[in-house]
Amino acid sequence: MNPPPAAPASIRPRERRQRVQAAETGTAILKALGSLGGRASLTLIASHIGESPAKVHRYLVSLMEGGLVNQDTSTQQYFLGLETLLLGLAAMRQADPIRMAEASLIRLREELEVTCFVAVMGNKGPTIVRFEEPGLPVTVNVRVGSVLPILWSATGRALLAALNDREVSAIAQAELRAATPAQRALLDADEPIEVLRQAVRYAGCASVRDTNLPGISAVAAPLYDYTGRPRAVLTALGASGGFDPSPDGVVGQAVRREAQAISQLLGYTADS
Amino acid sequence: MNPPPAAPASIRPRERRQRVQAAETGTAILKALGSLGGRASLTLIASHIGESPAKVHRYLVSLMEGGLVNQDTSTQQYFLGLETLLLGLAAMRQADPIRMAEASLIRLREELEVTCFVAVMGNKGPTIVRFEEPGLPVTVNVRVGSVLPILWSATGRALLAALNDREVSAIAQAELRAATPAQRALLDADEPIEVLRQAVRYAGCASVRDTNLPGISAVAAPLYDYTGRPRAVLTALGASGGFDPSPDGVVGQAVRREAQAISQLLGYTADS
Repeated sequence: MNPPPAAPASIRPRERRQRVQAAETGTAILKALGSLGGRASLTLIASHIGESPAKVHRYLVSLMEGGLVNQDTSTQQYFLGLETLLLGLAAMRQADPIRMAEASLIRLREELEVTCFVAVMGNKGPTIVRFEEPGLPVTVNVRVGSVLPILWSATGRALLAALNDREVSAIAQAELRAATPAQRALLDADEPIEVLRQAVRYAGCASVRDTNLPGISAVAAPLYDYTGRPRAVLTALGASGGFDPSPDGVVGQAVRREAQAISQLLGYTADS
Repeated sequence: MNPPPAAPASIRPRERRQRVQAAETGTAILKALGSLGGRASLTLIASHIGESPAKVHRYLVSLMEGGLVNQDTSTQQYFLGLETLLLGLAAMRQADPIRMAEASLIRLREELEVTCFVAVMGNKGPTIVRFEEPGLPVTVNVRVGSVLPILWSATGRALLAALNDREVSAIAQAELRAATPAQRALLDADEPIEVLRQAVRYAGCASVRDTNLPGISAVAAPLYDYTGRPRAVLTALGASGGFDPSPDGVVGQAVRREAQAISQLLGYTADS
């Protein structure tokens, strides 16, 4: 049981590269199986990544050893196994919308110099959980833990449009009953909630000017996860004088783009 | 751009082994990250799998290259990335209860010589989707596509206990209203459905003797997936004369054991 002789110094860097390459080939095989729907024959996997079936087979044996891949004894096809499923579950626990939104919040703050935040649906309504504000002398402040209205805030409207859920609808109905005549006049006379929902869906974001707080405008877009469920809302806001909340304004475009980028990080795809 | 010189023949087998080992080390690192909750420092990962941090770091660089792992820039911790999440989703699509139950059906058929099947909740009720029957001269037959009652079949009762769902409850209520006095007498006088549900949960399986079909006994247990949801039911049945459907009988024990094994293959854990 002697240790293997050390490789000559001149070989070590190549060996190092090879080992890294091997981990990358293993990754490529797993991803090939994933993009082939989770199940495929050896020849299909090999042709998908442009490697020889003999080489791919050796890797598959290793991956099967670790439970990442299984082989169907009846069809001989390989498929992603239980350990891959369990790794995916662990990855999902890491795919936290608040954490994933961090880079977007910083980009919005730095590139557009706007206050921006992430809100999630709490038991009282949309609740601010993380924010960034630009280093300007005067900025609009938000407070972590603040609950926003569904009908009058951009954040709430983004949630209303994305989440067809009893809780959200109940809050919206209660807000509608408590609305002042001026607030009520902002919404459709016949179908106030449904028309609002459709408008936000059509625009891809919700925009408000002075409806929640006088002098404050905001634009908000929902963040979806791998199940297609909205998990949070990304919102940018500012003083109405110097802030264009329209969907196609500079901020509106950036919020929609960043919301899409975060949703992608959460595993969202159009068919989720 | 010459190809690299071929390695001497005597080195090739070792190289082959190394490459396989490398894929296994990559797998071990991913699984370490998974079992550490999806996120950990380099030193923790390295100590978890008993490798040097320098070696583990090289692998992590490769795994990051492929998007399976990401590094948190603020904490320097590594975490399972989006590609792992997407692989997990593909693995979940493969974790099909019917396919996963196949080996169990064959074991039940061969070891106990009983007819056995998997049923899923269809739009009319529990529906047989896959079965195996022993090669005996006379066996009890089932038909793929058959819908079973919720209250009177073992399969239905296993679903009733596992799935606290409006659809199942509605079918159970309708069956209760249509029950004959003899059927009604089999259930608790005050809380017929709830007492049945609790009894099945307590036993870990549902057992019936002659309640659905005269002369037929059956025992059934639910199959849960990684979300903790019941996805299907595993059922064994036979002629009441030669078939003991009690939870602690030979068949009852085997059905419960196989149902647990299938649930594990579907990613079910006690905390799902």
